[in-house]
Amino acid sequence: MRATVIHGAGDIRLEEVPDPQLSTGGDAIVRVVAACVCGSDLWPYRGVTPTRSPHRIGHEFVGVVESIGSEVSTIAVGDFVIAPFYDCDMTCANCLNGASTSCLAGGWWGADDRIGGFADGAQGEFVRVPHADGTLVATPGQPAEHLIPSLLTLSDVMGTGHHAAISAGVTEGSTVVVVGDGAVGLCAVLAAKRLGASRIVAMSRNPDRQAVAREFGATDIVEERGDEGVQRIKDMFDGIGADCVLECVGTKESMDQALRSTRPGGMVGYVGVPNGGPELPIGRMFSSNVGVNGGVASVRNYIEELLPEVWSGAINPGRVFDLELPLAEVAEAYAAMDERRAIKVLLKP
Amino acid sequence: MRATVIHGAGDIRLEEVPDPQLSTGGDAIVRVVAACVCGSDLWPYRGVTPTRSPHRIGHEFVGVVESIGSEVSTIAVGDFVIAPFYDCDMTCANCLNGASTSCLAGGWWGADDRIGGFADGAQGEFVRVPHADGTLVATPGQPAEHLIPSLLTLSDVMGTGHHAAISAGVTEGSTVVVVGDGAVGLCAVLAAKRLGASRIVAMSRNPDRQAVAREFGATDIVEERGDEGVQRIKDMFDGIGADCVLECVGTKESMDQALRSTRPGGMVGYVGVPNGGPELPIGRMFSSNVGVNGGVASVRNYIEELLPEVWSGAINPGRVFDLELPLAEVAEAYAAMDERRAIKVLLKP
Repeated sequence: MRATVIHGAGDIRLEEVPDPQLSTGGDAIVRVVAACVCGSDLWPYRGVTPTRSPHRIGHEFVGVVESIGSEVSTIAVGDFVIAPFYDCDMTCANCLNGASTSCLAGGWWGADDRIGGFADGAQGEFVRVPHADGTLVATPGQPAEHLIPSLLTLSDVMGTGHHAAISAGVTEGSTVVVVGDGAVGLCAVLAAKRLGASRIVAMSRNPDRQAVAREFGATDIVEERGDEGVQRIKDMFDGIGADCVLECVGTKESMDQALRSTRPGGMVGYVGVPNGGPELPIGRMFSSNVGVNGGVASVRNYIEELLPEVWSGAINPGRVFDLELPLAEVAEAYAAMDERRAIKVLLKP
Repeated sequence: MRATVIHGAGDIRLEEVPDPQLSTGGDAIVRVVAACVCGSDLWPYRGVTPTRSPHRIGHEFVGVVESIGSEVSTIAVGDFVIAPFYDCDMTCANCLNGASTSCLAGGWWGADDRIGGFADGAQGEFVRVPHADGTLVATPGQPAEHLIPSLLTLSDVMGTGHHAAISAGVTEGSTVVVVGDGAVGLCAVLAAKRLGASRIVAMSRNPDRQAVAREFGATDIVEERGDEGVQRIKDMFDGIGADCVLECVGTKESMDQALRSTRPGGMVGYVGVPNGGPELPIGRMFSSNVGVNGGVASVRNYIEELLPEVWSGAINPGRVFDLELPLAEVAEAYAAMDERRAIKVLLKP
């Protein structure tokens, strides 16, 4: 089969690789119907994190089950399934607590040091899925073509935006600021809206992204950043800041923006992968009672809640995909994301 | 009148100072019935924080209202009142949000640079109380003598322990670890108990404090610290740690202990005043979804909830006082706390 392999910074190749094989009784082989490129895939692409040896890449996909191991009981051949950006058994203490990204038996797509053999990345034609009963969620039937992008967001970005909102305690009537206008930030706007936020500020300078943010429920746009951005936010909320601020970038600057935009006693929900920092300034947090909660989103735990609304069309997070390419053009997909020509690129094998 | 003045590290003096005067229509003058020494008072006493010039000290007191300004309407002369460890108007946006330590008009007892003149500390015979209607809470009547220590804890340590528990999200059935066996840590045990925690581990090596912790509801005691302490806690809770960890010390070591004792997806509630740090390790927090919430406790917002249980005797947080001294012996009170001969010292003017 064909699959994407990263060889180093800027070096993304579609290569012929061995077909995946069932290797435990709990595995499934899934034929990928749609995959995509994540903001975090850009880190090795940009050389921010090193690529020590060539390895498979991609961690978001939906597809159709081709075969299953003898112990798989809830997933059947032919099911259309959503996979989270990691695998998990959904039976360990962490999964049961809602923290499936800390599954005691789980792992990551594309990692090359996993027990049980090579791990497939998702930007390929097929994926071997460990713990298929836990990892995969089958849709109620075969989806209409137009639903596929939104179903694909349940692999990562919609669940991650939702995690930011849940971590920040967004509830009916909350005031919310979203820092970051990538696919996750936009999905965080949508998540805050469906949780009942009364006012949602999207911080964005990009007209296309502003438009999606408004479509998703943003009531206000703030283009300023830094001190000016903080002042704008404070002015909007009684001079003190917003109840909940969703940090969806992962840089020192974005976390600083988030912390300073939160009112005393409020909460930052963060899902931006911390890029070599920042360490958090506890003295400032202490004096203002601003909490920080979040992390690598346990999106698997959210699929059951979000899927019915995607299935019915009540929410349309797939709107974040503004470019679709065949898998053969995966290198161009990375370039388009890297150069911010696209918010998020959908890949069709 | 007589009041305590700190002149520098180790130099605590009871001095003759001017009687306080009403200076705004919203003030009250309160005759102090009981005050006490806080763990945070030990910082300037130990020279950890510098004392630039002599100033009044102490921030926890209960007493009887001697006189009131013309605008005071809810507090009357003769009322027995509880004062939080700061003053606040309870009408600004932050106070209404439950974050009264960030009151837009508030201040701190004993600070020497406040608008409106010199601020009294609480370790004296009288205190001028700004924003008396907001700051003070009157008890339902004159308290029995034996209730006074517990009422005094509502000034700070009981409300602060409660804040740790609330910040960590302790609720019915939570598993809880308390790091720190000072008065605040012990009150955090009591707070977790009344919020319905199913299991409460007190980390303490001191037999007297262990006894109070058990009396307050601790189900387990762990004496180990560092790696051994973390391992003991993990072993007690499914190998993953506790739902909620209450950090009641404020050092790098205690925060590290707290973060590592929390299960993935759990929360650290912290109220230990960060002593020159620590900065928080966001990478580890991100990968485990351990949140950090808390800060300088908004105890004024909690008095209405906690007072009825103190008044009825349902809870007895005053048990943390294990030494009572006349105000004249305030220097000995500091020494006893500093040398850990006492958990907490009550002072009677």
